[in-house]
Amino acid sequence: MAAGADVSCDLRIDTQRLLRRLAALGEVGADGGGASRLALTPADKAGRDLVVGWMREAGLEIHVDPIGNVIGLWSAGPDAEVVLTGSHIDTVTQGGRYDGNLGVLGGLEAIAALRESGLQPRRSLGVAFFTNEEGVRFAPDMMGSLVFAGGLPLAEALDTRSSDGARLGDELAAIGYAGERFFPHDKISAYLELHIEQGPVLESLGIDIGVVLGVQGIRWMEVEFRGEARHAGTTPMALRRDAGAAAFDFAAETGRLPEQIGGAQLATIGRVVLEPNLVNVVARRALVTVDVRNTDAASLRQAADQVVATARRIAEARGVDVAVRDLVDLAPVSFDPAVVDAVRAGAQALGLSTVDLPSGAGHDAQMLARVCPSGMIFVPSVGGVSHNPREFTEPRDLQAGTNVLAQVLAQLAT
Amino acid sequence: MAAGADVSCDLRIDTQRLLRRLAALGEVGADGGGASRLALTPADKAGRDLVVGWMREAGLEIHVDPIGNVIGLWSAGPDAEVVLTGSHIDTVTQGGRYDGNLGVLGGLEAIAALRESGLQPRRSLGVAFFTNEEGVRFAPDMMGSLVFAGGLPLAEALDTRSSDGARLGDELAAIGYAGERFFPHDKISAYLELHIEQGPVLESLGIDIGVVLGVQGIRWMEVEFRGEARHAGTTPMALRRDAGAAAFDFAAETGRLPEQIGGAQLATIGRVVLEPNLVNVVARRALVTVDVRNTDAASLRQAADQVVATARRIAEARGVDVAVRDLVDLAPVSFDPAVVDAVRAGAQALGLSTVDLPSGAGHDAQMLARVCPSGMIFVPSVGGVSHNPREFTEPRDLQAGTNVLAQVLAQLAT
Repeated sequence: MAAGADVSCDLRIDTQRLLRRLAALGEVGADGGGASRLALTPADKAGRDLVVGWMREAGLEIHVDPIGNVIGLWSAGPDAEVVLTGSHIDTVTQGGRYDGNLGVLGGLEAIAALRESGLQPRRSLGVAFFTNEEGVRFAPDMMGSLVFAGGLPLAEALDTRSSDGARLGDELAAIGYAGERFFPHDKISAYLELHIEQGPVLESLGIDIGVVLGVQGIRWMEVEFRGEARHAGTTPMALRRDAGAAAFDFAAETGRLPEQIGGAQLATIGRVVLEPNLVNVVARRALVTVDVRNTDAASLRQAADQVVATARRIAEARGVDVAVRDLVDLAPVSFDPAVVDAVRAGAQALGLSTVDLPSGAGHDAQMLARVCPSGMIFVPSVGGVSHNPREFTEPRDLQAGTNVLAQVLAQLAT
Repeated sequence: MAAGADVSCDLRIDTQRLLRRLAALGEVGADGGGASRLALTPADKAGRDLVVGWMREAGLEIHVDPIGNVIGLWSAGPDAEVVLTGSHIDTVTQGGRYDGNLGVLGGLEAIAALRESGLQPRRSLGVAFFTNEEGVRFAPDMMGSLVFAGGLPLAEALDTRSSDGARLGDELAAIGYAGERFFPHDKISAYLELHIEQGPVLESLGIDIGVVLGVQGIRWMEVEFRGEARHAGTTPMALRRDAGAAAFDFAAETGRLPEQIGGAQLATIGRVVLEPNLVNVVARRALVTVDVRNTDAASLRQAADQVVATARRIAEARGVDVAVRDLVDLAPVSFDPAVVDAVRAGAQALGLSTVDLPSGAGHDAQMLARVCPSGMIFVPSVGGVSHNPREFTEPRDLQAGTNVLAQVLAQLAT
């Protein structure tokens, strides 16, 4: 595409301003070396106000919708379609400076660079931040984009209670971000989100840009084994109904799922709780969580079925009771092939190395994918660290990712 | 032995009084359906005062030693050797009515019955309760009998601090049970302890009396795996150093130790702690405790060596660090063959069924075994339950055990 290629030559991302703004936003809700801006808290309001100020400074129109999602718009006219970029600015407790923030502030820089380049786009360009992506204070996560995409009724979302009992709708009104109207879906022609990888793949391969093919499907299950508490010294092995032993057999076997299923299959047992959890007492109860992920829906279903079958077989063998509960069941999402191709081509046109990969974490882009052609750009995370004050991406990677974003937005908008 | 057999015909255990006293002692420190008489608390003092009153009522001389062990003595003269019985009356938090108490109150009944039978024993007969057998408030457990047997210096024991900071010696003085002198070891000719099994073996076999061959050796180890916390969705399996997965592999394999080693080998993993213990985070750290027990010292050593080797091999395979710490290392104890034989013969002479078995739990008798020929008599625990308000032994089994105790004490004393 000649037009896009021409534009890219004139683009001037203000990398220093991007770094200053990431640092400044990171100071809002500063906590333990990172930042805590949980959704709809005073710290979230302060972060929102700061970013909205920068949007106004860039000459963008501010749109706030009824769940608190904010779009800063460079309008190409009242009837023009809109190309959206963005992410979120809420954080986990003691989160990092890049997760979410990069997509919003990088999007702002990209649009500013496109305006300064003299581009006359056919479509409007908007940068959004979506409410409560992290889901720490209010469940579910990715709530703002989910409501926007029609996956959760607004009234239900507004009635959500935080762990401390606050009603989401009240908190949203209290910080002044309860808007009037949703942005109409049919005006959005595409959504593209820049994000840190939050994993180690790009760094370990030495690759500049991750071309995100989609988001893995996720199943979370909780497996509960129930046996009998017994004295570790007085109870012969044959007379035990050991819930802990069942949990360990189950966890060890479930850990071998990825090699059995192959491909992109992941399996993680990150949480286990024994009762009474004493050195000399056979456990009466053991709770184990399972997190399985795959980009392929059929393989993911097979993995989940195998988890249930393994739990039942081991419970039977150990003479304990078992219950398996589903906690999360999210189908894999595939991004739009045209957007994916545009990201790959845009990065390569800038001389950057790319690799196609799935996203292992959930992102607002997977909700937007229900509404419009969508895609994502990943930049490396040092050490794969995220949700942590040590989260870091090299400035040259921030710049590269933002340049790719600007390049592809220009192409999508013209 | 004709003398013993003659005596047994005349014995009249007052089972109703035994049941009343077990119930009355169970009301001291009543707590949640059971009793909490942690060592050297006001509740322990009240229990001690009650039992000492009953000892005086039975015409016994009271001896209190410097660690608070109490012996009620039916003296056969100043130079006579002494046959001792007894146990402890301290409890765990919300303990049962039988653990320890039966050995003391049953011992008191046995001696009373022997006196009333007109027996003229060559040796004195004494019933003891030992301080802090349970070790809940002050470590180690079996402290009173350990100090008595010379396994722990008195001064060190008196300087022990409770979890709430109190000094044992001060607490002992405060309840009025700091005596002057230890009972001389060389006057004790034998020690025999009646106790509930605290396990399910006798009940599951339908056997009246357990002839205790000795006490299992115990090794407690803590295995710590250290890896890296990682996002469960963004970290490929090959790039993980998963401390939790190592712990599960280790625990599952260690659970197979008993069948590999065979015999009386026990292995229990009752405690595991993951960090951060979240469903979607690969664990950075996992702590696992191992409790292995065996009556055979060489087999126990083999089991412990195998635990260490398994931990190292799995840590290597998983790319995580590992450290193994010893928490407890108690060698197996064998009881005196003559005392063991006397228990078996005494029970069978009363028409009771017997089975030889090891003790899975620790008991004061294993400390006394350092000083004099020792043994134990077990009676069934309903459901194998102990350290619990639901701890229960049928009155007929309490009576049978106390009859065997009286029978064997008579034999040992004449």
